[in-house]
Amino acid sequence: MPPAPGDREARREDVSEAVWRVLAGKGFGGLTLRAVAAEMEVSTGMLMHYFPTKRALITHALDLLEKRTAERPRRARPVAGLSTVRAMLLDILPLTPGDTARNRIWVSSWDLSLADEGLTTEQAGRYTRLRSTIRPHLEAARDLGELPAATDPEQLAAIAVAFTHGLVVQALFDPGRFPEDVQIAMVDDFLASIAPPGPGGGKGR
Amino acid sequence: MPPAPGDREARREDVSEAVWRVLAGKGFGGLTLRAVAAEMEVSTGMLMHYFPTKRALITHALDLLEKRTAERPRRARPVAGLSTVRAMLLDILPLTPGDTARNRIWVSSWDLSLADEGLTTEQAGRYTRLRSTIRPHLEAARDLGELPAATDPEQLAAIAVAFTHGLVVQALFDPGRFPEDVQIAMVDDFLASIAPPGPGGGKGR
Repeated sequence: MPPAPGDREARREDVSEAVWRVLAGKGFGGLTLRAVAAEMEVSTGMLMHYFPTKRALITHALDLLEKRTAERPRRARPVAGLSTVRAMLLDILPLTPGDTARNRIWVSSWDLSLADEGLTTEQAGRYTRLRSTIRPHLEAARDLGELPAATDPEQLAAIAVAFTHGLVVQALFDPGRFPEDVQIAMVDDFLASIAPPGPGGGKGR
Repeated sequence: MPPAPGDREARREDVSEAVWRVLAGKGFGGLTLRAVAAEMEVSTGMLMHYFPTKRALITHALDLLEKRTAERPRRARPVAGLSTVRAMLLDILPLTPGDTARNRIWVSSWDLSLADEGLTTEQAGRYTRLRSTIRPHLEAARDLGELPAATDPEQLAAIAVAFTHGLVVQALFDPGRFPEDVQIAMVDDFLASIAPPGPGGGKGR
């Protein structure tokens, strides 16, 4: 007898959870039908009802990563300017176990994405959208006098994204050196460095 | 008849070249005995004389990456201060096809390294050494008055490494948006942002 639709939905959730746990522990390099089946304590044959091919499993994993990133809890966004940028950058960092797992899976996906033209384009598009999301807040910060008048918001958005993603990688490899408070202090130092000193600026030199 | 020692050495070089080309194109996720054999137009059986296991192939690939990184051509190091830091950061970026291949292989290795405790420790050690190499030049820059007196060189070295590695990733995914001159301009903007404005500082605000 085939499972009832409700069971099927619940089982699909179980499968996604198992895929996530395998990714968080072993990355895309360790994502196999066998590893997911072992994680669920089911047969590989059972799992092939969900993923007839390795490719189907990878596609599901990438969709799951996209979905969980979109649905992740985020900090309240202050109204405008650098404090909004700060909240956006902190939302990217591996500051909680959940954030760490997600970041670790993103970093792991880069090997796969760089080897596939379509995935490379998608990933470049993600970075472009991220810069576009940050840019207006840098413009607002400039207009508020928090940043120098000569600031190029697009260039600065690219620098901020680069800094934040590089910090993600350092923190994933060396969580002892980069615990939560150190990551936050680095973001604050970075933001202080781009703000001009003196009244109106964030830099207390 | 076994090959003469000279032949064997030459063949070993051929194998390393083929491993490198596979890594540059497909990353560690695409590194298989079959792919390397195809690249060399030899049988997988022949290749198993060099790499009896997949693990041996991966170990060789990681050693090769380490070796080629250590032996890469580098810019002349100015005597001291921020201009030295600039040369060091530029030496990391994907500014030439060779640099791009090497960076692409490093990024690809992170999936593997994050899944293996020993490799994670080695990678964390590499970042620690990189920060230690940059730090004295930031100290010198501070002592020369190029950086504010309150600069924390260790923290700033970590910020500089994060920025540079994040830029590597953005440039690999979107070389059209981040060609050589844009990457260099970003490094210069980053360095200008950490230097204090006014006489003696590098910031022309």
